[in-house]
Amino acid sequence: MHDISIPALFGILAAMLVAAKLLGELAERLGQPAVLGELIAGVLLGGVLGIVPTEGPAGEVVHVLAELGVVLLLFEIGLETDLREMFRVGPAALSVATVGVILPFVLGFAYWAYVPHAAAAGSTDLTTAAIFVGATLTATSVGITARVLSDLHQMNTMEARIIIGAAVIDDVLGLVILTVVSGLAAGASLAPLGILRIFAVAVGFLAVAVVVGRFVAPRLFDLVVRMRVRYVLLVIAIAFALALASVAALAGSALIIGAFAAGLILSGTNQFDTIEREVRPVASIFAPIFFVSVGASVNLSLLDPTREGAPGLLGVAAVLTLLAVAGKLAAGWAAPWARYRRLVVGIGMVPRGEVGLIFADIGRRAGILNEAVFGAILLVVMATTFIAPPGLKLLFGSRSGNPAA
Amino acid sequence: MHDISIPALFGILAAMLVAAKLLGELAERLGQPAVLGELIAGVLLGGVLGIVPTEGPAGEVVHVLAELGVVLLLFEIGLETDLREMFRVGPAALSVATVGVILPFVLGFAYWAYVPHAAAAGSTDLTTAAIFVGATLTATSVGITARVLSDLHQMNTMEARIIIGAAVIDDVLGLVILTVVSGLAAGASLAPLGILRIFAVAVGFLAVAVVVGRFVAPRLFDLVVRMRVRYVLLVIAIAFALALASVAALAGSALIIGAFAAGLILSGTNQFDTIEREVRPVASIFAPIFFVSVGASVNLSLLDPTREGAPGLLGVAAVLTLLAVAGKLAAGWAAPWARYRRLVVGIGMVPRGEVGLIFADIGRRAGILNEAVFGAILLVVMATTFIAPPGLKLLFGSRSGNPAA
Repeated sequence: MHDISIPALFGILAAMLVAAKLLGELAERLGQPAVLGELIAGVLLGGVLGIVPTEGPAGEVVHVLAELGVVLLLFEIGLETDLREMFRVGPAALSVATVGVILPFVLGFAYWAYVPHAAAAGSTDLTTAAIFVGATLTATSVGITARVLSDLHQMNTMEARIIIGAAVIDDVLGLVILTVVSGLAAGASLAPLGILRIFAVAVGFLAVAVVVGRFVAPRLFDLVVRMRVRYVLLVIAIAFALALASVAALAGSALIIGAFAAGLILSGTNQFDTIEREVRPVASIFAPIFFVSVGASVNLSLLDPTREGAPGLLGVAAVLTLLAVAGKLAAGWAAPWARYRRLVVGIGMVPRGEVGLIFADIGRRAGILNEAVFGAILLVVMATTFIAPPGLKLLFGSRSGNPAA
Repeated sequence: MHDISIPALFGILAAMLVAAKLLGELAERLGQPAVLGELIAGVLLGGVLGIVPTEGPAGEVVHVLAELGVVLLLFEIGLETDLREMFRVGPAALSVATVGVILPFVLGFAYWAYVPHAAAAGSTDLTTAAIFVGATLTATSVGITARVLSDLHQMNTMEARIIIGAAVIDDVLGLVILTVVSGLAAGASLAPLGILRIFAVAVGFLAVAVVVGRFVAPRLFDLVVRMRVRYVLLVIAIAFALALASVAALAGSALIIGAFAAGLILSGTNQFDTIEREVRPVASIFAPIFFVSVGASVNLSLLDPTREGAPGLLGVAAVLTLLAVAGKLAAGWAAPWARYRRLVVGIGMVPRGEVGLIFADIGRRAGILNEAVFGAILLVVMATTFIAPPGLKLLFGSRSGNPAA
């Protein structure tokens, strides 16, 4: 009756959870954030052992569970976010996000279009390819950074608020860029009005949802709490997060923006601490599946230096990684009027995670990026994703890193 | 990159959760168990509105989440089960289960093979069809009954222990029957040695897992509790349940038997109450998805009396339902030496749930049961599933129902 072997799938999920916790523990014992261990667990289970399905029906199910994990994670982060504090860092976050999108894009585009390098040879349309390469460098993976900050118990710092705020804004900007590059991939030309519309929808969704939600949700949940059935508060809260994630994505925004908005909204209800306490165990089961999946999407054969074309590829990847890191680091200094540790914010913006992978994949499937260039971008995404956790740990560990200006 | 629209799927899941809680609440307010409301929520969302996917990639994902729900539910029930109490009711449960399998089978077979009725006309092989009809009447849905008992706060009663014990034994017997009928569907003849082997594997798995597990698990979890990462105890416990469910199914037993065994095993660890407290919210999210799915699999058009052949079909379904209920009710009296309320145990064994559906589906796909007979069996499964919740509620509500003999 069904195409999926559920016993096999449950076995894989069990292995993913156990590996995530064992390597997370090892990472913590070595003074690193647990999420770094979960990513490495994914590399081991996916790239080395090949037991994490990435395609076919089983791959779909793992993908859905991973998305459920990142939605629950962003919901939890939204619940833990103080909206007034968020507004206070708003201008700084906006400035950091904007610079952190423009600078990496310009650097990536310029390198690809104007500097001679191995991987550019054979590209049919250098300008389009350069736009794609630039675009893949703009994303920020809010999931990775948020988990690192949470692992380090730093979610309540000024820096964490700026990073999370900027990363959410980056997701809004990322949607605009995604739509533009998807249009390019389909052969369309850039229409300024279309771009503006996407931008307005994404920003508008977040604003309307939070304003309306903060008014409606407390009244709604005062009714819910009067119901008697088991765990009604938790189940309705998670249904609320799923529904808002769904509406956000269908309205042209993104799942994780809806989930984050749901958390922000419910943090204004009277039942907020019960919801937060009960959501945590549920999120703790699914978030590791997301991080292990991200690790499992790493293609290890790209790291093999004896592979044909590998030296050139690794050189290009190294340059792109430098540009990607430099562009985001510089964004850390984009809000000179605010007092915060610039380097912490810069490092926090570095991981590209799954968003960069999605951009690169669209370019590959449209034939704009060939296998080699796609491979180089994958290496950049991996490198940036793995740099941030130990970097943030180092900075938060040594308070001397970069004092508030 | 993916065939499934995740936003649409998350929207559907949100609707399933909200409908489950709203109708569960309504059921409770009307003095019924919440699970009855969840089943009706499934009928509304599935049969009436048609928004619960049952086929294609989205149907697969909902199916996996539903299975996750029933595995977590049985794991939780296992955790709450006192193994010594279970052993004390063992002989009674075994007797109830055995009678509850043989009697409905004989009644169903005899009616189909020897009594003239509308639906038998046109059957190619009456004996094989009769074996299938008998087999579909043997199953007991442990999920439904356990939820009802839990909703009514009766899990610690003698009757509940016998029902759960007998339902688990029924699952073991069900596996044997399933393999036999699958063989028949494929055209094989009955091989007594093969049947014995399946039986030995299913019983052996449960025995070995519990004996070894009760020795190993406490030592293992004393190590796990020394780990520092977030929710490590919960995540490892759920991984353990998934792994044992997986091993059970791959070894020829069933997912839910493995999950139940995992709960029994972990109820012997020192960290048992932390695990139980943290598993509950996770199970409370996924169990409703299972019950809503069961409700959604009901084909409402079969209930339409104006449909061609409907009167005859409804008559056959009514007779089969009577036989199905009578066979299981009689099983309530199968352990005359033990003191318990016979009628409560009998009613508790009535629901056929998804197991009956699986048997019927195999027969339909093999061409042994035609659409009309399949429809009649679906009606029987529905009727028995919906009879038990209000029946148990009635009996537990009025202590005068059937005093201990």
